[in-house]
Amino acid sequence: MFRKLLTIEEAKTTIRQHFKPKPLGTEQVPLLQATGRILAENIIAQLNIPPFDRSTVDGYAVRAEDTFGAEETRPIQLELAGTINIGELPHVKITKGKAAEIVTGAPTPQGADAVVMTEHAERTDNTIRIYAPVVKDENIMKASSDIKKGQQLLTTCQPLGSREIGMIAAIGKPTIKVYKIPKVAVLSTGPEITEPGKRLTPGKIYDINAYTLSSAVTEAGGSPLYLGVIQDNLQQLQRALKRGLAQADMVITSGGVSVGPKDIMPSAANTLGKPGIIVSGISIKPGKPTTVASVFGKPIFSLPGHPASALLVMHLLARPLIQQLAGKEPQQSPQTKAYATARLFPAKGRRTYIMVTLKRSETGKQTAEPLPTSQSGAITTLAKADGYIEIPENTQFIEKDEQCIVHKFR
Amino acid sequence: MFRKLLTIEEAKTTIRQHFKPKPLGTEQVPLLQATGRILAENIIAQLNIPPFDRSTVDGYAVRAEDTFGAEETRPIQLELAGTINIGELPHVKITKGKAAEIVTGAPTPQGADAVVMTEHAERTDNTIRIYAPVVKDENIMKASSDIKKGQQLLTTCQPLGSREIGMIAAIGKPTIKVYKIPKVAVLSTGPEITEPGKRLTPGKIYDINAYTLSSAVTEAGGSPLYLGVIQDNLQQLQRALKRGLAQADMVITSGGVSVGPKDIMPSAANTLGKPGIIVSGISIKPGKPTTVASVFGKPIFSLPGHPASALLVMHLLARPLIQQLAGKEPQQSPQTKAYATARLFPAKGRRTYIMVTLKRSETGKQTAEPLPTSQSGAITTLAKADGYIEIPENTQFIEKDEQCIVHKFR
Repeated sequence: MFRKLLTIEEAKTTIRQHFKPKPLGTEQVPLLQATGRILAENIIAQLNIPPFDRSTVDGYAVRAEDTFGAEETRPIQLELAGTINIGELPHVKITKGKAAEIVTGAPTPQGADAVVMTEHAERTDNTIRIYAPVVKDENIMKASSDIKKGQQLLTTCQPLGSREIGMIAAIGKPTIKVYKIPKVAVLSTGPEITEPGKRLTPGKIYDINAYTLSSAVTEAGGSPLYLGVIQDNLQQLQRALKRGLAQADMVITSGGVSVGPKDIMPSAANTLGKPGIIVSGISIKPGKPTTVASVFGKPIFSLPGHPASALLVMHLLARPLIQQLAGKEPQQSPQTKAYATARLFPAKGRRTYIMVTLKRSETGKQTAEPLPTSQSGAITTLAKADGYIEIPENTQFIEKDEQCIVHKFR
Repeated sequence: MFRKLLTIEEAKTTIRQHFKPKPLGTEQVPLLQATGRILAENIIAQLNIPPFDRSTVDGYAVRAEDTFGAEETRPIQLELAGTINIGELPHVKITKGKAAEIVTGAPTPQGADAVVMTEHAERTDNTIRIYAPVVKDENIMKASSDIKKGQQLLTTCQPLGSREIGMIAAIGKPTIKVYKIPKVAVLSTGPEITEPGKRLTPGKIYDINAYTLSSAVTEAGGSPLYLGVIQDNLQQLQRALKRGLAQADMVITSGGVSVGPKDIMPSAANTLGKPGIIVSGISIKPGKPTTVASVFGKPIFSLPGHPASALLVMHLLARPLIQQLAGKEPQQSPQTKAYATARLFPAKGRRTYIMVTLKRSETGKQTAEPLPTSQSGAITTLAKADGYIEIPENTQFIEKDEQCIVHKFR
């Protein structure tokens, strides 16, 4: 059956329509382990902060009007009513002419409406001399002035960093609801592929892709499940895909460096459940043989065999989906601007992605050096590919020394 | 004893001299769990890649000279010598006039020095018609052309991302040596501080700093150990610090929102071991009461009590040290440029850090709105502080609408 290749945009739309990606579900985690997770609830303050009027300085709690007229040369004398302990409600009450010793953070006592800083007062036994007046509310942080009970502090889908963790701690919540981390099963296929750590027999090479892609799953905010190397045979592949679909939320395969996924993968995926293959080839270079299947609502991505190409298509298609399943906004790869060191030609009629090495000259100028596509199967290409330049289908070429956007793999 | 405050540079130098920060040690981890870790060995290829000459296309392995003169209209006929299986050494040998069927990635057979692509050949039974000539080595990736045995692939101290993980997999290494993750004990002090999850009695507030700082430890690449809230009393503090020093590589304390670490922390730290306090106050704002101790070669950072100030000093002093202990280059916080929305004044004679909120207008212009320092104790200040602007001691002010560098907390 002849089927027209999809454009990259059509492939993305098809994937979106089939999976309507939304977070997988939620789980409770201890706040101390929530760094980097995505919040799955609105955080509403269950208390006022501060919960009580508190002093913002070390000094003396007073009635402001008692200090009016105090001067450096003509201090006003007040009588010590007591000392306020931090961390408990004051037992002291301030009436006309009285003052209470107070430290930063302690609750101000009943009757007091200002605090005189230690630097502007002097104590001798039970007499406090005040050398400068204070106005009402001076040096007091009023109850609920920072946060009001019922106020929303954080919104669901917020990524949690140190500041957000601190804010949730402030209202006393020890555990929070976050989105589950998507599990992604990763496998390689090909009779010549050997798992690292095993003996390499003649004619074979080590598995690169499942390791690169597992690591890319981690970087995207997912949790990889390595299913190993599966022989290129329909039954074994079906069994591995079934296992992946049962244990994970997504499956990513790649054909090894040698065998494209075009032949056996569609058959395997199509027999597992409806609708089966939804994207069968994409009009991009590299990455043309990419297929995507949907089985019981879970995606199976079959990526090209060349390591750098597999990582590219992972970034283009699988990464945004992992991020959405994790509750994140799908994020573009980090971008940087650089000058092309050679004229770059797209493949005819296909969206073309040129792998580049980024270099910065002594003058600070950043250049993007294209890597030969003939060597896209090489490990050294994977090693050198800091990112890629995207060339639209209708572009004739990108000129040497033209400034381009480079999408970085990290 | 009167002691002149150190400048921030002097404080950094003192810390560097005392701790001569270097990675803590190494551990072996499975390659699949090494994403984000720091490599602690040079990775040397123990084999050639590819280990054998392999075909880069599907087609027919031939002697190049046998194809010379082949044309679309005048194909050259070769005899099929056999089929080469992928993943094993070929049993076929190519002699004059012979060709062998081969797939991408399979080893080329003895006698063959080129591969004709399927598109340029046609098979009928045991006869192969070649419609285009190939030259020597065409469509063959020679053994060791990608990576040579003994070649260094990665260097110690390299952070491990998907591409590096793939490269290490390529040479078959299933486990690697990485630097240990520094453990950082974090505690809060203050009789008014309550651990989140516990009942808040009158006069008390919840612990913010130990949570913010624990999360910042994670963000810096360390592993936090929460020691909880310690009462402001010498014995309990000594016991907690001892526990932290025994179980972790660094201790970070903060005085709660109310009590500065200036009083009790030096006494506690000085009694635990030599040399004790090495930094006692820094000429910065905020963060002046910051103290740093060295006990048996391990650092104790005592940060200011205000949440945003504590996070700031964490970023200035503790974060670089955590990164170095983790084997990383100490990284500056991410920076961005923004226009100040108001004139910014430094505190007289002190390096001043103004917390700012970053905003982007519809035209794309990014502005930095200063947060009032009077509210540096507020949670909302922590919430709004996307980063800080550093103002040197000798600067009079930063003008409104002047472009500044903002150091971001994330």
